[in-house]
Amino acid sequence: MSPSGSSASSAQAPSDAAPPFKVGLLGHGTVGGAFAQLLDERADEIERFNGRRPVISGVLTRSRGDFQQILAEADCLVELMGGLEPAREHLLAAIRAGKHIVCANKQLLSQHGEELFETARERGVLLRFEAAVAGAVPVVRVLEESLSATPIERIHGIVNGTTNFILSEMSAGSSYEEALAQAQRSGYAEADPSDDVSGRDAAAKMAILARLAFGTPVHLDDVRYEGIENLKREDMQFARELGLGLKLIGTAERLQGGVSVRVHPAFLYGGHPLASVMGPFNAVTVEAQDITEITLSGPGAGGRQTASAVLGDVVSVMTGGARPPAPPLSLPLIEDVESAFYLYLDVADHPGVLAAVTRALGEQSVSIKSVVQRGLGDNARLVMVTHPVLESSMRAAVEVMAGFDFVRSPPRTIRVIEEEFI
Amino acid sequence: MSPSGSSASSAQAPSDAAPPFKVGLLGHGTVGGAFAQLLDERADEIERFNGRRPVISGVLTRSRGDFQQILAEADCLVELMGGLEPAREHLLAAIRAGKHIVCANKQLLSQHGEELFETARERGVLLRFEAAVAGAVPVVRVLEESLSATPIERIHGIVNGTTNFILSEMSAGSSYEEALAQAQRSGYAEADPSDDVSGRDAAAKMAILARLAFGTPVHLDDVRYEGIENLKREDMQFARELGLGLKLIGTAERLQGGVSVRVHPAFLYGGHPLASVMGPFNAVTVEAQDITEITLSGPGAGGRQTASAVLGDVVSVMTGGARPPAPPLSLPLIEDVESAFYLYLDVADHPGVLAAVTRALGEQSVSIKSVVQRGLGDNARLVMVTHPVLESSMRAAVEVMAGFDFVRSPPRTIRVIEEEFI
Repeated sequence: MSPSGSSASSAQAPSDAAPPFKVGLLGHGTVGGAFAQLLDERADEIERFNGRRPVISGVLTRSRGDFQQILAEADCLVELMGGLEPAREHLLAAIRAGKHIVCANKQLLSQHGEELFETARERGVLLRFEAAVAGAVPVVRVLEESLSATPIERIHGIVNGTTNFILSEMSAGSSYEEALAQAQRSGYAEADPSDDVSGRDAAAKMAILARLAFGTPVHLDDVRYEGIENLKREDMQFARELGLGLKLIGTAERLQGGVSVRVHPAFLYGGHPLASVMGPFNAVTVEAQDITEITLSGPGAGGRQTASAVLGDVVSVMTGGARPPAPPLSLPLIEDVESAFYLYLDVADHPGVLAAVTRALGEQSVSIKSVVQRGLGDNARLVMVTHPVLESSMRAAVEVMAGFDFVRSPPRTIRVIEEEFI
Repeated sequence: MSPSGSSASSAQAPSDAAPPFKVGLLGHGTVGGAFAQLLDERADEIERFNGRRPVISGVLTRSRGDFQQILAEADCLVELMGGLEPAREHLLAAIRAGKHIVCANKQLLSQHGEELFETARERGVLLRFEAAVAGAVPVVRVLEESLSATPIERIHGIVNGTTNFILSEMSAGSSYEEALAQAQRSGYAEADPSDDVSGRDAAAKMAILARLAFGTPVHLDDVRYEGIENLKREDMQFARELGLGLKLIGTAERLQGGVSVRVHPAFLYGGHPLASVMGPFNAVTVEAQDITEITLSGPGAGGRQTASAVLGDVVSVMTGGARPPAPPLSLPLIEDVESAFYLYLDVADHPGVLAAVTRALGEQSVSIKSVVQRGLGDNARLVMVTHPVLESSMRAAVEVMAGFDFVRSPPRTIRVIEEEFI
């Protein structure tokens, strides 16, 4: 025990409010910095819901901070330093001191997970690691909690964003070398990409998922992996002819009374839920007889996305997980919203029709994105897609159009959702 | 209080083991029956992990069971009866008696949720309802826990499997009437499908998701909804020309300082993560600045799938959520697994080549699913996809082929994953 216990108690809130929840942060790189910022931004909201305010009570980097002092002060340690040592030694010390742990370190968990898990179990300490696999995609929690009573048969995962980005570029026509260079320029690949392109990073993540899914210890060394370095543009071209997409797939499955865990490039048929996962996104499909198949997808990396998963774990440690529903807020309900619209009109096929329709739309500031007109004897079908517009404006325009004598049946509108995020 | 308290204590395990975790089951229809069976199948495993064995301590149906007695005996009530009353009255009584609740009743939660939530909060009781929205897809837990510290911007959901099945059939060429009849024959639509096709079922689910995402009370009556009854095959045809897919989409979003919650048919651009969700599946996309976008998908209904979500909630109530990692099992690692393979060969273009290659494959029992051969001057490229075969067999065949003098460069193999579940 460090002699800094007194400074820990002096850091307590002076008021009669609940004391802050003190987070010791090990590591302050991209994710660590993003986490500290996110915690600061969300502290008010978390305090409102959970009664205690999370604060960073100490930060350890290579050049600053004293581990023993940080340990003594913290309620919970967040390990974002990476690597095996001193991360392992610090976490074991923290668990033995009864501190809860949030950890995003896939190397450590895939090589020394059992030692950490066993020590945490002995001490009754929580050890959360959502951010170690698939960034913001909550696959760890879903396996640990939602599916804890489900005998899982198989997991397929795209768990490395760098290689998925490279393969997406190659399927658009790039060579491997061009795609890797593009990934490095875009910040999706490091200067030395070998951990990603060799499949080793994905293997570590699959070892962690296999432990959660099947309950049996799986070490990184137990996972066979192949990377994407030897894939050729020609493979992609032939694959397209065969209706296949190419991904780096991690597999963990029950087989012959045991388990198999492996990572390798694989072709997927077009209908597979992982076939449409593009760019730096991650996705995991969990199969079990009870649930058929569940797929989770989202951004696999990025400082802020990973930090969001870490913060979710911290909140989970603060609350212990399940809790009664929070008291309600009161936000107004908005009725008139903007949307793009598909508009279908049966019209008489004579001059001036299109002009009258576009005028009716223009008067309500509805702007047209695309038009398909098709003749059909005396009639024509006029189909349009608009740019986003208030529903009330679209409704007013449709009412005007419904009154035109050349409109043969009630105009039909259907909303169109445009993808903004990806 | 019922006088049956004495029978509750006499039901305790006689040994010195932890007492069973007693579940009172309200409702024994399709989901209730599947839940009782699943709990029975999983009881050993749950006891191993959690120390207590879950048992059904009482069942209430229209024709049997006494609510007061079931209430007195249970540690937790599972409500799968549906409808507003007497479900509401029973759950309020149970919460006031300090019992935890698992509930799959979307009508009740979307109309009397605040009353239940407030009572649960006052009594410090857990109220879990994963199965009320999107069946086995764990969107409730992800919103409540993983994303509890994330300010969510928008949710888009396909939360009604019946209508998604009908629209999938229509996009394959059926009329609305034909598709509805097919859904009824397949068991995906009820004899009276109005709650589904009108959008009202989806509206109830979106009200529940909006409450979780934004913390503000949203009543079913606050949700505007349109159904799919008026959609035409022609809309689908034009949509295809425009590169769009048609879905019944629930939307809940922050807008102008408030929230908007609505359900209506909508066209999606091909790249949208919900565009590829087919048949009776459900999917929900959650957007927030911190996480970009997460999508969860899986079976939206089905007795066993929904029962699996209910059982996950029961386990969550038993454990209180987060807990230390379970002790490890010990399962063997399987090294030699079956896979289909893509095989790429650069060969000299002369007679006998294909025969020699197929013989080398046949000797290892590798059977060929498809072949693409393409001439290139004196050379040819031979690409094959095999049926599933042991990796060791494929490796042996490749070694033989690598020794052929007409093979111009090392043969390349890539695994092919076939979709079995959907």
